[in-house]
Amino acid sequence: MSLINRQLRLKSRPEGLVKREDFDLQQQPVPELKDGEFLVRVLYLSMDPTNRVWMSDIPQYMPPVAIGEVMRALGLGRVVASKSPHYAEGDLVQGLMNWQDYAVIDDRRRKDYVKLPPQLSVPLPTLLGACGMSGVTAYYGLTDIAPVQPGETLVVSAAAGSVGSIAGQIGKLRGARVVGIAGGADKCRYVVDELGFDAAVDYKDENWKKALADATPDGVHVNFENVGGPVMRGVLSRMVNGGRVALCGLIANYSSGSRPSDDYSVIIVKRLSVRGFLVFDYADTNKAVLDLAGWVQSGRIKAEETIEDGLENAPVVLNKLFDGSHRGKLLLRVANDD
Amino acid sequence: MSLINRQLRLKSRPEGLVKREDFDLQQQPVPELKDGEFLVRVLYLSMDPTNRVWMSDIPQYMPPVAIGEVMRALGLGRVVASKSPHYAEGDLVQGLMNWQDYAVIDDRRRKDYVKLPPQLSVPLPTLLGACGMSGVTAYYGLTDIAPVQPGETLVVSAAAGSVGSIAGQIGKLRGARVVGIAGGADKCRYVVDELGFDAAVDYKDENWKKALADATPDGVHVNFENVGGPVMRGVLSRMVNGGRVALCGLIANYSSGSRPSDDYSVIIVKRLSVRGFLVFDYADTNKAVLDLAGWVQSGRIKAEETIEDGLENAPVVLNKLFDGSHRGKLLLRVANDD
Repeated sequence: MSLINRQLRLKSRPEGLVKREDFDLQQQPVPELKDGEFLVRVLYLSMDPTNRVWMSDIPQYMPPVAIGEVMRALGLGRVVASKSPHYAEGDLVQGLMNWQDYAVIDDRRRKDYVKLPPQLSVPLPTLLGACGMSGVTAYYGLTDIAPVQPGETLVVSAAAGSVGSIAGQIGKLRGARVVGIAGGADKCRYVVDELGFDAAVDYKDENWKKALADATPDGVHVNFENVGGPVMRGVLSRMVNGGRVALCGLIANYSSGSRPSDDYSVIIVKRLSVRGFLVFDYADTNKAVLDLAGWVQSGRIKAEETIEDGLENAPVVLNKLFDGSHRGKLLLRVANDD
Repeated sequence: MSLINRQLRLKSRPEGLVKREDFDLQQQPVPELKDGEFLVRVLYLSMDPTNRVWMSDIPQYMPPVAIGEVMRALGLGRVVASKSPHYAEGDLVQGLMNWQDYAVIDDRRRKDYVKLPPQLSVPLPTLLGACGMSGVTAYYGLTDIAPVQPGETLVVSAAAGSVGSIAGQIGKLRGARVVGIAGGADKCRYVVDELGFDAAVDYKDENWKKALADATPDGVHVNFENVGGPVMRGVLSRMVNGGRVALCGLIANYSSGSRPSDDYSVIIVKRLSVRGFLVFDYADTNKAVLDLAGWVQSGRIKAEETIEDGLENAPVVLNKLFDGSHRGKLLLRVANDD
């Protein structure tokens, strides 16, 4: 059987939103496996703000994707062939799958891949969302980086998104008053009515700053931040003295194309602790994944995904992260698991 | 005896550098003391970046000085008359003295004033500098906010200034490799040859970023930052992953008149902890003052002051903070202690 692998390779660095023409769609046969390699059929790709960062030649925590390289992305797939003693046909694997149909992986890199235990009775998309990098990011942000305490007020930006929706629900589990910031009345209703946040603020409403003040009468103790820009400035201005910020993303800066105009002054004025973090720094995320899967199974955390189809659509699907037209985790289905 | 009190009252909010015309010099008799009040002859005024902040109607940790109000400033003076049981003629007092010859203080506000123990055998200017707010700021920044450890690399900005010069020396006492950033070859020689820093970088030299890289081969573990702007950006780009920043000032932003263009992204990329702090938050600074005075007396810390004369010159003397033309603590002598 000769399998054809479609790959999206970076052709030019996007400015602002991503265009189909920024990528080349190439087709080539899947190469013969060497000893120690295994072949994964990619099922779902995780669409994350960090993908947009990886496309840009700016200082970042990993090298940017080079021109001509297959676009880097997390994903989930099933092993369809193996010359590795560590992987067998049928194993479910999570890790860097990249924008392609098939990934050939050398098992010497297996520490970068998670073989998912078969007994996790959570749907595959949820494994990439609430129980994947997004949920784990929320988990460490509020348990390790800026542990929120009962009775404190937590503000979560991008509250209807993949990370924010889980962060807010973890805040509730920890006994905090949770205020979400989201774009539009629908998303605001969603985080309050369906996810159980105490209040939501629509940043597209011109009076959002007053709404934020009304929703945070005691100020803000913890800000779980993954947006940045004017929304973050508004939240920081509501922080109590000595407040803590778990900073995991600055999506407002990633595709704006303009120079950030953040201001460190508020960190002094409010005596804040601002801690940046990356989920990749946590070597063993098993406890987080098991806790999250348990909460999902018991209904204490609601997981939602927005699923789009077709590898060839990856560049334009990614833009949905920035135009606010999705809810929960944004995923691309590359193939059905059958 | 009828004493005349000269006072500098804020007339207009300065833009950029401070001008004499931004203040009114008014003269009026010192009022009769009421019960509980005491009168202080102001001897030295502390010239601090925070004075410039207090002149501006921007969000800050205390209300800005109102138009028509006497300019707020820390200082040191001697009690010359008292109707308070807590203060006697001859006592040396440190606290908010403001830009005037005499301060009438109600002893119900005495928690805001420090009566200095007579046995401190440190010169008066040093009490306002290395053993005053500047030294205490350096002390807490490196012992509480971002405690630097032996063998780590500490970078201190404004290294020849009142806070930075002490911060670097405390870093050396704690066993760190200390690199100072200062403007001009003279100041760089000063911090290395006289203060004992391991290296200095002249940010006025066009190759300063390369010099900084050469001086920090292991990266930067702790940044004691009181400048901000391009210098801070350069230091942050050298931080190790997980580095800590003690942020106590952003002098580059205070008088620039332009909108800050900081960028929070580096906090994520480098997983930094950035903590803002204000020395005023430390209620009891006795241990810090005694430690600092002990280090000064034993010669383990060198203290230096730049002293200018004349209350009427306060507005223009303050500008010396921003043009780099002073070394150590900048003080204004209002009267001789005789």
